[in-house]
Amino acid sequence: MRLRFTTAGESHGRGLVTVVEGLPAGLPVTAEWVDRDLGRRMRGHGRGGRMTIEQDRIEWISGVRAGETLGSPVAMLIANRDWANWQEVMAAEAAGAPRERRVTRPRPGHADLTGVLKYDRTDARDILERASARETAARVAAGALARRLLDEFGVTVASHVVALGGIVAGAVDPLDAPGAADHSPVRTLDPEAEAAMVQRIDAARAAGDTLGGVVEVVADGLVPGLGSHVSWDRKLDGRLAGMLMSIPAVKGVEIGLGFAAAARPGSEVHDPIIAGGGHAAPRRGGNNAGGLEGGMTTGEPLVVRIAMKPLSTLMTPLETVDLSSGRSARAETERSDVTAVPALGVVAEALVALVLADAMLEKFGGDSLTEMRRNVDGYRAQLAARWSGERDAAR
Amino acid sequence: MRLRFTTAGESHGRGLVTVVEGLPAGLPVTAEWVDRDLGRRMRGHGRGGRMTIEQDRIEWISGVRAGETLGSPVAMLIANRDWANWQEVMAAEAAGAPRERRVTRPRPGHADLTGVLKYDRTDARDILERASARETAARVAAGALARRLLDEFGVTVASHVVALGGIVAGAVDPLDAPGAADHSPVRTLDPEAEAAMVQRIDAARAAGDTLGGVVEVVADGLVPGLGSHVSWDRKLDGRLAGMLMSIPAVKGVEIGLGFAAAARPGSEVHDPIIAGGGHAAPRRGGNNAGGLEGGMTTGEPLVVRIAMKPLSTLMTPLETVDLSSGRSARAETERSDVTAVPALGVVAEALVALVLADAMLEKFGGDSLTEMRRNVDGYRAQLAARWSGERDAAR
Amino acid sequence: MRLRFTTAGESHGRGLVTVVEGLPAGLPVTAEWVDRDLGRRMRGHGRGGRMTIEQDRIEWISGVRAGETLGSPVAMLIANRDWANWQEVMAAEAAGAPRERRVTRPRPGHADLTGVLKYDRTDARDILERASARETAARVAAGALARRLLDEFGVTVASHVVALGGIVAGAVDPLDAPGAADHSPVRTLDPEAEAAMVQRIDAARAAGDTLGGVVEVVADGLVPGLGSHVSWDRKLDGRLAGMLMSIPAVKGVEIGLGFAAAARPGSEVHDPIIAGGGHAAPRRGGNNAGGLEGGMTTGEPLVVRIAMKPLSTLMTPLETVDLSSGRSARAETERSDVTAVPALGVVAEALVALVLADAMLEKFGGDSLTEMRRNVDGYRAQLAARWSGERDAAR
Amino acid sequence: MRLRFTTAGESHGRGLVTVVEGLPAGLPVTAEWVDRDLGRRMRGHGRGGRMTIEQDRIEWISGVRAGETLGSPVAMLIANRDWANWQEVMAAEAAGAPRERRVTRPRPGHADLTGVLKYDRTDARDILERASARETAARVAAGALARRLLDEFGVTVASHVVALGGIVAGAVDPLDAPGAADHSPVRTLDPEAEAAMVQRIDAARAAGDTLGGVVEVVADGLVPGLGSHVSWDRKLDGRLAGMLMSIPAVKGVEIGLGFAAAARPGSEVHDPIIAGGGHAAPRRGGNNAGGLEGGMTTGEPLVVRIAMKPLSTLMTPLETVDLSSGRSARAETERSDVTAVPALGVVAEALVALVLADAMLEKFGGDSLTEMRRNVDGYRAQLAARWSGERDAAR
Repeated sequence: MRLRFTTAGESHGRGLVTVVEGLPAGLPVTAEWVDRDLGRRMRGHGRGGRMTIEQDRIEWISGVRAGETLGSPVAMLIANRDWANWQEVMAAEAAGAPRERRVTRPRPGHADLTGVLKYDRTDARDILERASARETAARVAAGALARRLLDEFGVTVASHVVALGGIVAGAVDPLDAPGAADHSPVRTLDPEAEAAMVQRIDAARAAGDTLGGVVEVVADGLVPGLGSHVSWDRKLDGRLAGMLMSIPAVKGVEIGLGFAAAARPGSEVHDPIIAGGGHAAPRRGGNNAGGLEGGMTTGEPLVVRIAMKPLSTLMTPLETVDLSSGRSARAETERSDVTAVPALGVVAEALVALVLADAMLEKFGGDSLTEMRRNVDGYRAQLAARWSGERDAAR
Repeated sequence: MRLRFTTAGESHGRGLVTVVEGLPAGLPVTAEWVDRDLGRRMRGHGRGGRMTIEQDRIEWISGVRAGETLGSPVAMLIANRDWANWQEVMAAEAAGAPRERRVTRPRPGHADLTGVLKYDRTDARDILERASARETAARVAAGALARRLLDEFGVTVASHVVALGGIVAGAVDPLDAPGAADHSPVRTLDPEAEAAMVQRIDAARAAGDTLGGVVEVVADGLVPGLGSHVSWDRKLDGRLAGMLMSIPAVKGVEIGLGFAAAARPGSEVHDPIIAGGGHAAPRRGGNNAGGLEGGMTTGEPLVVRIAMKPLSTLMTPLETVDLSSGRSARAETERSDVTAVPALGVVAEALVALVLADAMLEKFGGDSLTEMRRNVDGYRAQLAARWSGERDAAR
Repeated sequence: MRLRFTTAGESHGRGLVTVVEGLPAGLPVTAEWVDRDLGRRMRGHGRGGRMTIEQDRIEWISGVRAGETLGSPVAMLIANRDWANWQEVMAAEAAGAPRERRVTRPRPGHADLTGVLKYDRTDARDILERASARETAARVAAGALARRLLDEFGVTVASHVVALGGIVAGAVDPLDAPGAADHSPVRTLDPEAEAAMVQRIDAARAAGDTLGGVVEVVADGLVPGLGSHVSWDRKLDGRLAGMLMSIPAVKGVEIGLGFAAAARPGSEVHDPIIAGGGHAAPRRGGNNAGGLEGGMTTGEPLVVRIAMKPLSTLMTPLETVDLSSGRSARAETERSDVTAVPALGVVAEALVALVLADAMLEKFGGDSLTEMRRNVDGYRAQLAARWSGERDAAR
Repeated sequence: MRLRFTTAGESHGRGLVTVVEGLPAGLPVTAEWVDRDLGRRMRGHGRGGRMTIEQDRIEWISGVRAGETLGSPVAMLIANRDWANWQEVMAAEAAGAPRERRVTRPRPGHADLTGVLKYDRTDARDILERASARETAARVAAGALARRLLDEFGVTVASHVVALGGIVAGAVDPLDAPGAADHSPVRTLDPEAEAAMVQRIDAARAAGDTLGGVVEVVADGLVPGLGSHVSWDRKLDGRLAGMLMSIPAVKGVEIGLGFAAAARPGSEVHDPIIAGGGHAAPRRGGNNAGGLEGGMTTGEPLVVRIAMKPLSTLMTPLETVDLSSGRSARAETERSDVTAVPALGVVAEALVALVLADAMLEKFGGDSLTEMRRNVDGYRAQLAARWSGERDAAR
């Protein structure tokens, strides 16, 4: 079994659809649990007006009954609450009707220009509606289910903003302050940096500019041995990086020390393995590896950081070309957020949860939560037995 | 059609096998072409003794006849030239025979410890033989075929070292100096940095330590529109990052400006689109995006950087635990390279070539080189016609 | 690019969702086109009362604008028109509420018993709601889009019933009577057999029994060379068989002569290749191969037959065990159709269309209909040139 | 985790390569075990001269050490023992050298003609070398490893010929006579039919003709619940049919009663569920379903039958066209077997074993044999507890 998810939906279309396949049966879920993450995604200083309209909520279409998953595909619909205002522009049918809100001045940094070339379109709205970061709401819904599964096994996934618009937060371990980032308007754990980030955002808004930043995601409570070293596409680091780099506007991913590890000697990078003493498992003398060695979880907290470039739609628009005339123009100004970095962490948590839940299902199988739990518990006992001298008994 | 590749083989086993599926028929290939990249992977200041033994060469097993691909799976064998010395230790059969060269003191930073836990082994050699970076030779062979295909379409893929052991090279565009990196003992294009890097390597060797670094890969000659914005797993940035982060010891990946983009305002990040004038296509006023927007190639050079941590096997070994006793110990010292950063670029080139060739086959299809070329040419003409006013004619 | 589709939804849930990914942009589509196939699936003598309630229709959720595909995932929702009567029984939330319409007497022949064991459920409704053949409506919607694409290339896919309840129809080539099967109450082309089939259905209904049958699907207008001989999972015959055998209640699949080919000598099976004369392509002296040789289309009509067992819910129920008591019982009688064989052809057409559209996209690529058409036309010209002596010119 | 396998190699090339990925570590294997199935594939009345040359044997390249799998990809090489006679004809390099043994008269029924069109070749040898059934040897090697895994869980997979050249064997349950088919020259269990089949083969050889037939594969010892009803591509019946129909020359697949089920009423098809009494699980009052309901194993023996058309190379060749002249000709006569039906069962066993092992890994996970066994045992206990009233205790 493997966890798969599929999203569909345009930004101003009827809504977003997410289908999640491969969850075990018997997992307790509620819409409230999913909506909570959808709500978290919408907050943050620096968002424009649209966020207040949306109030994303899922409707269950399938796969859940009487509060539990059935093992069948779980489909969720997130209706677009602004649909009434867009249904003519985005109508599926009415071929040949004059198109409103046509976009012919592609925004540098966005999919607009390349998309119209690749898909042979004349209206960049046909591209930007899908390339929009709105699609990440559908991923957050999928990730909330993955997180629900992880939660049954004591695995937590948290995030916080470590840099925004060039302001760098001081080092804080988010595991020491669970949930605290959600109380910050920029989802950072450093109060001093928080104030500076808010200021920077306000200044950028005044200048019609946009800001990027860096987010850190930390997952804790993992068993060692998720992922694998045996083949390139089973390595968990690659799977995480692939998933995270697919978030719109993300241009960098690093694990543990990341790029900083490249500048240090090996003696200052690798985490010593410290004998546990008695019947205890060995522990690590650090976590520079960010919880991943050889493409597998080590059991230490998983630490990933991703860099987001500034949003591509500037209110002081950049130079571009008009698709209909071929002449120089100013880019479209479709939307008005200054930064989406606070939301990025919520999206990244969801994707990390999906990758980890998938890796757990891959290793442990399980068609029901009961079965999966039994398999996980058996593995944990096997690991404990290795150090307790009862190894053969546990087999 | 999609390009797939599969590798197999242990570091000191009989050899490595690579199978590449999905290449069009009629592509001219030679063993010499593939061996050239295998040779490039083995060089570089900082490698230990083994590299001189190996002299990797492929033997064709299938998929090629009379100098051309057949469209069927191409299998290549890279024999291990040191096999005679290892055949007892690594024998497939002889169950129960006493095991020589058992590894019970796992190296921090490597797959050793997690691997024995996950796969329930008592000898970490059962893990490290596959987790070894030797496997990347098999990937380089696969990548050489992908590069051969790209070569037919004028796409080049190059790399150079931009940092090693903390020494940062000055900015050089590798497209200005094709092939030059291969003449440097550390594959860098900055002669001053080169000297410092060599010194740093020699010092690390003397200290029994290891070094990491950063490599940049640049691909040129691409059509716009490889990859897609429509679904997370079709985005080219995610596919590149996933592939590159799966290289052993790589802990970071960034595209274009990467992490640096997170600190700048949008007005200084996004690449303006400059009208071409007359019937010319528009061009970009910069390439901060690294040739990728919305998960698609823009047609500008693709620029990716990856960070490699220092090698995990130190001659001054780190603290670990002995698997057989559970007591504290010093880690195994299996191998003696100081750094593999110069080789990393060759590996990364291969993987970038595989991702790009796959994306081209996905977009253009084609069972023969003839057919693929016709499809690519047709698309190029379609793009040109858009700006020349002859768009409808080209349909 | 590859065509993927995902379905979700329970039989009496809120509705069915279908997501189709990978269609080129610019394909003209209408809900009417899709609904037409949904309507065809619901007809046929032998259906019970539910079919008249349903009147399946799709609502576009995404991927289509102004009458054309956008290249993004196309999501369709088929609402369950009987939802008002089921919303308490099938409610997603309300954990712990007493469950109505619990099913504890699993039906032999259905997924009920194995499903509750595998997924660790106590109410077989948790299984049967998804295992129900109602899910095929979602596949028909997906297939209608695939058929729309094929239609642009002159490929047609038709079906007719060749046996029902033991009555065998006389041999008719459905290509000679396009659309005729839809005018028969049992979707057969032999009027005599039709009358006997209707009678057999009426008799089975009176006896509380159910009936199966055999359906033939024929696709015409295909280029030679879809699929491939090179690897097992690229062979088109395997891909067709895998897709078709996944239809609920299908127990057999055969291509061309099928099982009958096993009893004849080779000299009476293989289709001679007849020289075309002049500049014409060669033609076949028969089509016993059913249009597939070596896992590839030959260009002759594709002919597939599938066998459906009788429906598993009998009004005169079979012996079973009660899950709650472990004692002998009579099986649940959830639903009242006598046979679904007439509808089976419509489902099978949809799945054949999906496999063929996927194979075309695999071979020809294409992000827009324009691009795909250019690539297909180029290939057709290449084939024609081979026999006309202008081969080199066409390259 | 999922079991994947990849094959490569041309019929008269250097050899065949098989790579199997996803086996758990710690599985005892020997070359002898694999070679035994390779040997079984080569026997059978009706094979030509080549079979005696071959004596296929594997060489381990990777993934196995000290008699056990390592969890890493297992690569096996089956050298072509006739390579010395073919190395010039099949040489990978030597581009432009005159080609010996060129094939320009494509054989009806084989991939020859379509292959040269699709892949744009002028020598059909470029196609037939890969389309040859010789490739099935590589699949048999992969299947032998899958069977080794199943063997650890008490799952057996056997086969026998039920029809050959129109001679139909009497019904015998192969589970009653394990291994007996291998003692028959045509791998049938009915001695009378055996004699008639041998005669029929001799007569066909005399006539320069070829024969097909039908093979039945039976797997026993399966847990209920492999595969799934939830999505089309997780259904085990579809996965089996897809795999089996990809065998060269197979034109039909059926499960359980198969096509015969289509002619009977439901009351005579579905297998009653008989209460077990006391604490015993219920059992089935028949196995018309062939061990599969709702796309899942029921726990009853899995029964699949496949139909093979006669071989495509006739010594009395069929009409074809010469590719170089476009004129009518007699087809190539590359090879001289009369029938491969006896070998077909061995190939089909291998593929069924691969599908079942994959389904077990999907359901149970497991990186080591120890872990997988613990998970399987836990599930078996869970099932037993359901009927014993100790259900909650077993959770």
